[in-house]
Amino acid sequence: MEIMNKKRMQVFSGTAFPALAAEVADHLDLRLGEVDIHRFANGEIYCRYRENIRGSDVFIVQTHCEPVNANIMEQLIMIDAAKRASAKRITAVVPFYGYARQDKKTNGREPITARLLADLLTTAGADRVVSVDLHTGQIQGFFNTPLDHLTALPLLVTWIRENFDLSEIVVASPDAGGVRLAQKFSTRLDNAPIAFLAKTRTAHNVARTLAVVGEVADRTVVMVDDMIDTAGTLCGAAEMLTSRGARRVIACATHPLFSGPAYERLQQSSIEKIVVTNTLPIPEDSGCDKIAQISIASTIAQTMRAIFEDESVSELFNDDNS
Amino acid sequence: MEIMNKKRMQVFSGTAFPALAAEVADHLDLRLGEVDIHRFANGEIYCRYRENIRGSDVFIVQTHCEPVNANIMEQLIMIDAAKRASAKRITAVVPFYGYARQDKKTNGREPITARLLADLLTTAGADRVVSVDLHTGQIQGFFNTPLDHLTALPLLVTWIRENFDLSEIVVASPDAGGVRLAQKFSTRLDNAPIAFLAKTRTAHNVARTLAVVGEVADRTVVMVDDMIDTAGTLCGAAEMLTSRGARRVIACATHPLFSGPAYERLQQSSIEKIVVTNTLPIPEDSGCDKIAQISIASTIAQTMRAIFEDESVSELFNDDNS
Amino acid sequence: MEIMNKKRMQVFSGTAFPALAAEVADHLDLRLGEVDIHRFANGEIYCRYRENIRGSDVFIVQTHCEPVNANIMEQLIMIDAAKRASAKRITAVVPFYGYARQDKKTNGREPITARLLADLLTTAGADRVVSVDLHTGQIQGFFNTPLDHLTALPLLVTWIRENFDLSEIVVASPDAGGVRLAQKFSTRLDNAPIAFLAKTRTAHNVARTLAVVGEVADRTVVMVDDMIDTAGTLCGAAEMLTSRGARRVIACATHPLFSGPAYERLQQSSIEKIVVTNTLPIPEDSGCDKIAQISIASTIAQTMRAIFEDESVSELFNDDNS
Amino acid sequence: MEIMNKKRMQVFSGTAFPALAAEVADHLDLRLGEVDIHRFANGEIYCRYRENIRGSDVFIVQTHCEPVNANIMEQLIMIDAAKRASAKRITAVVPFYGYARQDKKTNGREPITARLLADLLTTAGADRVVSVDLHTGQIQGFFNTPLDHLTALPLLVTWIRENFDLSEIVVASPDAGGVRLAQKFSTRLDNAPIAFLAKTRTAHNVARTLAVVGEVADRTVVMVDDMIDTAGTLCGAAEMLTSRGARRVIACATHPLFSGPAYERLQQSSIEKIVVTNTLPIPEDSGCDKIAQISIASTIAQTMRAIFEDESVSELFNDDNS
Amino acid sequence: MEIMNKKRMQVFSGTAFPALAAEVADHLDLRLGEVDIHRFANGEIYCRYRENIRGSDVFIVQTHCEPVNANIMEQLIMIDAAKRASAKRITAVVPFYGYARQDKKTNGREPITARLLADLLTTAGADRVVSVDLHTGQIQGFFNTPLDHLTALPLLVTWIRENFDLSEIVVASPDAGGVRLAQKFSTRLDNAPIAFLAKTRTAHNVARTLAVVGEVADRTVVMVDDMIDTAGTLCGAAEMLTSRGARRVIACATHPLFSGPAYERLQQSSIEKIVVTNTLPIPEDSGCDKIAQISIASTIAQTMRAIFEDESVSELFNDDNS
Amino acid sequence: MEIMNKKRMQVFSGTAFPALAAEVADHLDLRLGEVDIHRFANGEIYCRYRENIRGSDVFIVQTHCEPVNANIMEQLIMIDAAKRASAKRITAVVPFYGYARQDKKTNGREPITARLLADLLTTAGADRVVSVDLHTGQIQGFFNTPLDHLTALPLLVTWIRENFDLSEIVVASPDAGGVRLAQKFSTRLDNAPIAFLAKTRTAHNVARTLAVVGEVADRTVVMVDDMIDTAGTLCGAAEMLTSRGARRVIACATHPLFSGPAYERLQQSSIEKIVVTNTLPIPEDSGCDKIAQISIASTIAQTMRAIFEDESVSELFNDDNS
Repeated sequence: MEIMNKKRMQVFSGTAFPALAAEVADHLDLRLGEVDIHRFANGEIYCRYRENIRGSDVFIVQTHCEPVNANIMEQLIMIDAAKRASAKRITAVVPFYGYARQDKKTNGREPITARLLADLLTTAGADRVVSVDLHTGQIQGFFNTPLDHLTALPLLVTWIRENFDLSEIVVASPDAGGVRLAQKFSTRLDNAPIAFLAKTRTAHNVARTLAVVGEVADRTVVMVDDMIDTAGTLCGAAEMLTSRGARRVIACATHPLFSGPAYERLQQSSIEKIVVTNTLPIPEDSGCDKIAQISIASTIAQTMRAIFEDESVSELFNDDNS
Repeated sequence: MEIMNKKRMQVFSGTAFPALAAEVADHLDLRLGEVDIHRFANGEIYCRYRENIRGSDVFIVQTHCEPVNANIMEQLIMIDAAKRASAKRITAVVPFYGYARQDKKTNGREPITARLLADLLTTAGADRVVSVDLHTGQIQGFFNTPLDHLTALPLLVTWIRENFDLSEIVVASPDAGGVRLAQKFSTRLDNAPIAFLAKTRTAHNVARTLAVVGEVADRTVVMVDDMIDTAGTLCGAAEMLTSRGARRVIACATHPLFSGPAYERLQQSSIEKIVVTNTLPIPEDSGCDKIAQISIASTIAQTMRAIFEDESVSELFNDDNS
Repeated sequence: MEIMNKKRMQVFSGTAFPALAAEVADHLDLRLGEVDIHRFANGEIYCRYRENIRGSDVFIVQTHCEPVNANIMEQLIMIDAAKRASAKRITAVVPFYGYARQDKKTNGREPITARLLADLLTTAGADRVVSVDLHTGQIQGFFNTPLDHLTALPLLVTWIRENFDLSEIVVASPDAGGVRLAQKFSTRLDNAPIAFLAKTRTAHNVARTLAVVGEVADRTVVMVDDMIDTAGTLCGAAEMLTSRGARRVIACATHPLFSGPAYERLQQSSIEKIVVTNTLPIPEDSGCDKIAQISIASTIAQTMRAIFEDESVSELFNDDNS
Repeated sequence: MEIMNKKRMQVFSGTAFPALAAEVADHLDLRLGEVDIHRFANGEIYCRYRENIRGSDVFIVQTHCEPVNANIMEQLIMIDAAKRASAKRITAVVPFYGYARQDKKTNGREPITARLLADLLTTAGADRVVSVDLHTGQIQGFFNTPLDHLTALPLLVTWIRENFDLSEIVVASPDAGGVRLAQKFSTRLDNAPIAFLAKTRTAHNVARTLAVVGEVADRTVVMVDDMIDTAGTLCGAAEMLTSRGARRVIACATHPLFSGPAYERLQQSSIEKIVVTNTLPIPEDSGCDKIAQISIASTIAQTMRAIFEDESVSELFNDDNS
Repeated sequence: MEIMNKKRMQVFSGTAFPALAAEVADHLDLRLGEVDIHRFANGEIYCRYRENIRGSDVFIVQTHCEPVNANIMEQLIMIDAAKRASAKRITAVVPFYGYARQDKKTNGREPITARLLADLLTTAGADRVVSVDLHTGQIQGFFNTPLDHLTALPLLVTWIRENFDLSEIVVASPDAGGVRLAQKFSTRLDNAPIAFLAKTRTAHNVARTLAVVGEVADRTVVMVDDMIDTAGTLCGAAEMLTSRGARRVIACATHPLFSGPAYERLQQSSIEKIVVTNTLPIPEDSGCDKIAQISIASTIAQTMRAIFEDESVSELFNDDNS
Repeated sequence: MEIMNKKRMQVFSGTAFPALAAEVADHLDLRLGEVDIHRFANGEIYCRYRENIRGSDVFIVQTHCEPVNANIMEQLIMIDAAKRASAKRITAVVPFYGYARQDKKTNGREPITARLLADLLTTAGADRVVSVDLHTGQIQGFFNTPLDHLTALPLLVTWIRENFDLSEIVVASPDAGGVRLAQKFSTRLDNAPIAFLAKTRTAHNVARTLAVVGEVADRTVVMVDDMIDTAGTLCGAAEMLTSRGARRVIACATHPLFSGPAYERLQQSSIEKIVVTNTLPIPEDSGCDKIAQISIASTIAQTMRAIFEDESVSELFNDDNS
């Protein structure tokens, strides 16, 4: 018996952030696949696909927003069910990858949860992964499956270009570890100058806990980071930059975690504008009106189409996803 | 260089139910090991062992109570950290094993989450597992590591014997699937008669949705199950038994999930007494005063000691843990 | 170089029960693939595919009848050869899954051979499995590959409906563990009443070793089980049911193991009729003329076609294969 | 809690050849461990260890004699049970390794069953393997576990030295593939000359199907092989050697498979004496009185003791086990 | 979304022997795929595919010539990059398989590097392997992936037939271990007689270190081996054969390693002609003018096409690749 | 049979840098274990342990200096041999971890060779790894085995403190990616100020390719990096720092790769002193007399002893190895 081999693409969303998945599906001219997901009384998650996925190229979209552990487990369970339902290939689409900051041991007897998570996804049955602006690029190496690593950099850079005068911009990192990222923004912003906040002494040996390295006076300082969590460091850095003469301070990041006091802090800070993407949801009533949220859905959708159709992803983004 | 080989036992508790772990440690004349566990602002879990565990026989106690997904992730992360900190052997002690009811596909395109969970524990680095009264014994086969399967049956049977006249007892299962367990109780209760509730017709062909199979009139009916979740089926069964003439109805189970409306339902039901163990915590202010909770800590502790000292566990319990 | 991707289906049979495989192939309008299988003088099995299977979707049909160990090894060897011959996908079709009853440890220091067998099949190279009425559904979870779990329930129920008056029927389980299955039959037989045989006391406290729970007098009692092995328990139960006034006793099971004295026992018992499927072969000269054997070949064939063509199997059977 | 670490050795035998295991245990001053092994009515194997093996260094002795598939399955099941019963380390002792001749594909679409068997043993849970005179040394590489490869060569060579005049001996291989082994014997027999039987032409170009290469006239020809199966090739070779003037013909092999017509053929052949070891059992009523069987038990026992006590095995045998 | 499934073949070469890969590609009417490979200053290898390989059937051709370790690492790295770039299937084409002679432990505490290499290739991501005349066929069993094992035997035999009078030929092995291969050549050369060089005594008991077994006087002796490394044994054997009256001596092997003093030795030896294939490169200025090199490229190309198109490889070569 | 369990430590060195291994062994009061390692004529590596290692805790020391690929393969082969010789535990000690800079994809279709290397070590049989100052800490997560990550930071900081006036020091990074490391040095050097070289514009908008961010005039600038390879970037940075008024420039790194033109460049540069450790060998005739090489042997030896004796490594170094 011999038949022609067709392939079919299906996209399913977990319950973490269905609006993003729906937007991705729209870009693909697909409807989201139907899947029952609910919680039992004791919090256990149940899932069942309501349509046949046998032999399909299945994409399971779940960002790791709060409640992060439940959302991760839900994605693992969805992957297990898809594997047992004979999906041909399962791609875990993880716009924000949870536990990315626990990517190494900084003290003895710590876990490396970002690696653990990679193993959990693979164990459940994920054949490949799509993610955006991983906290460190090395997380790619936590997987032995193919991983398409997208970046919001072009979107964020475009937004900055459209809203500010490039000649006035200084790119700043709120800490030493982020200078590499600041360099990347600088390169894409006509080599704008770079500054960062160091735990250091001043030039005259007066001890200090925080100092600005680089020139920021009279400048539009764009602070860049991969994510904004409680915004504590960021807002502290903004005060320091302002005190050092920065004309205005902008914050720019891919992932809007905005945990705990973040919205209030940002609202009350000297930061003028915060630009982020929608890898994570932001509630309408956040109480902070300075936030601009750019959609990453088209980037994700183009990647998924390329994966399905075996087109190059790096060419799609001119290798900008590095 | 040659030295004698000693071995050391250390017990750590996750945050799910530290009181049980502490009780277990007491039985072992050990103090619980020190470990930092906290949540980051976005809900991610951090853990770090505060004492050296290199070369140790480490037991990580975590029951899968609510929030079940976070508690599972926490145990996985603790296992990962122990593995990377060079523990010689890691035993996951899981008094109540989460997702045990999702142990097979009952419909197409479902997950088998109980197997997934076994794989997650093994992937994280668990070398062996201890658990109590698994929903089905077959879950043992979801692991390829050794698993010590304990049972609360002797404890529960002893309690029944001490509180009731055996000659009046009928053991009942609230549904067809539990008759096997009822048979086990019956065997240990001088072959007390068995009954169960079936979805069936009566003897005179009048259609019904629920019928009692077996004699219960004027009896002390002990309904047995491995766990009590929302208590809906149980309380419905109790009404039926009462309507069929049962003198009094007792409920008996290993795992007190008591989710959602469970406490209220039990309090208002015709059930006289509910006896369970402490594989899961019960809040002091549950609002239900009919519950007797027996401690399983000694059983777990004896098993852990036997594991550490390479003594037989099945002899410890006269093979009652089957 | 780019070519269209076709896919091809090939079905091979081991030597255990080629007649069933041939019947399955007939339903698929296929001829069985050619494969040399023979035993060396010392009992070692040799196999070689006599046709090209490179890139094919290969189904290897072998039921685990006697000699069960040799038949299992033969299937493993066939799978290994197919893997090395570059089959694209290998499906082990196992109408009766051997060692299914050793699916958990009921005593200390026992194996879980049903899990071991799952691992052996996977290690040899099986990408997926098809089986019928596994002894317990949890065996699905012994695999991490997709497993299509078929059931003969609809066939057996249809046969009962066609041969008996539903209003007279009581469904009985020969022991406590089978009441769940009896409930499934009951549901499909207009909620016929259920009974079972318990090791229990009577209502008047007279000790007994076996008692009928439920009403059977003047009824057509259909005893159901997943398999009939030596038929000892079954025939004993039949006598008990007859002594309790059952008008006639019918036995119904998917798998006809009929080991040792089974045929003689059944012939001499009070059981009027035994209905089974052909997941296992029955010799023509069995000496028992009460057996009706229904063919499962069409069910298996439809499933294999759906697997090959990526059609839903659960829809094929209206989710009756649960 | 800290205790000294002891280690314990336990030896168990499968049902294939318990006499050999008992002899091995005797050499170790141990009694064989108690284990229940029986067959269910349908041929399935059951096993249960009757003594605690938790933390033990367990050796499971099973030679792969007939019925070879059942004996292999039995060993796999015993290993699985030992693994689940928390044995610290499991060594599969396999005096004769089944399927060793299927160690490569000699035609397309064949299995490599010797590799498959290695994977099955490892999958079941064997941590290491002991075997004797593997058909090809490369089978060692089918395992990633340590494998102690013993040889009966010293025993066989000693026997030859004690029974024959070395100056008269020619070592012969019954076919081209065995010349390497003949060379090994020759080296240990004061460089006795070598001959072999080739499928070739004679020196005068007369076509022939079998020819003796090397001088055998008036010699005591010792034909060597790793195993004797049906003895067909061997007896044919003996006739040829006799016809070429060999004074007498001796056969020497480690593994006495002696399948099918072997005993009768050997008895009727021109072979004067056949010397083998007891890696496989020989029935008392074999009907062939030319066979000398040397015990390998001491060699196996010494190896097992060295494994248990971490002594060098290669030094034990002066690297003769290569 | 549903599309037709096409498949695409791409061939890439490492830097070991690009001329062979190019010749293979020519036979396939393909151009070699573009890939950047260079060494960093400290010797680390970098590679990047310069064309999209997503979803492709990728063949990575690398023979394990000197520097053998760097060439192996290069192939592993190319495989890793292809895997992460989402190649659908990766075939490692290894005309000469390195470390093939370390295929078993011949002394205690040695590695089995040929198995290690198999595992390294599989770990890196190779889905299948193509190789030519492995040192021992058992190396096939070191892989659990499909392996297409080609042979240069037909090419070499044809060359011998075209250049010599078959009636004068004796096939000789330079040592005992190669008699099996000599037998294979003999069979394909009208059953030409066989001889070999043994470490043995002569027929008259005079001790010797090397003796010719079989008749070679006045013959064209074709010495066969799978590879020629330093040519020491070979040239020594040639002198011995000449001293025993061989009319002329020819050497024939698949793999021309020609290490160290090989070219000089061969040039100065009594060997008249050496025929080999191009599984390994030979420098133009080797200084030895007796070597005939036959191309294996067409054989490899046909196999690769068959793999891509799912045609039988064994039929392609009439099962001569055994 | 029951005996006390002792454990034994043995240290072996590959051929890459035996002097370092010998120094480590000296610190442990051990002699290096004896192992034969040589190359065959075609470059293949052979190894054999010359002493019994059964049951031992084996440490295999090999730094990944040039020829890097051969040295890696040698270590893999040594590990394989140790595994097959029944070492109880194998620790790969890798002072400089090769391919560490290829730890992520910076362009599409690149490998992640640092992860590949981790997998190769694990596949060969390494149970754990010791390494020094990995290029990025995330490489720890490429392993699932325990990895003890040491740092030369305390040694280097001590050297700086002993040789320079802390109040004059500025810590500089030669690029944006190294600012995090500069911060670490600064913290340990009484919060010395930080500077780095950015690809940026100056404060007056004049385009430039390289600019110093931070104050360096009249300072002792200590440039820090994890490794010095060809020294191109480093020497270029030194010129820039000098041109910006730095009083003197010191270079400080853990790993002295010193590839290609490194020695010449350093000798001719404005760098006054280069301080490194001996994780890699430096030839005596390097031609550069500015280099101070500090020994890391004691740090490695203490760690190995702690591993063997199950003592805490993080306490050994006050968690400085982060």
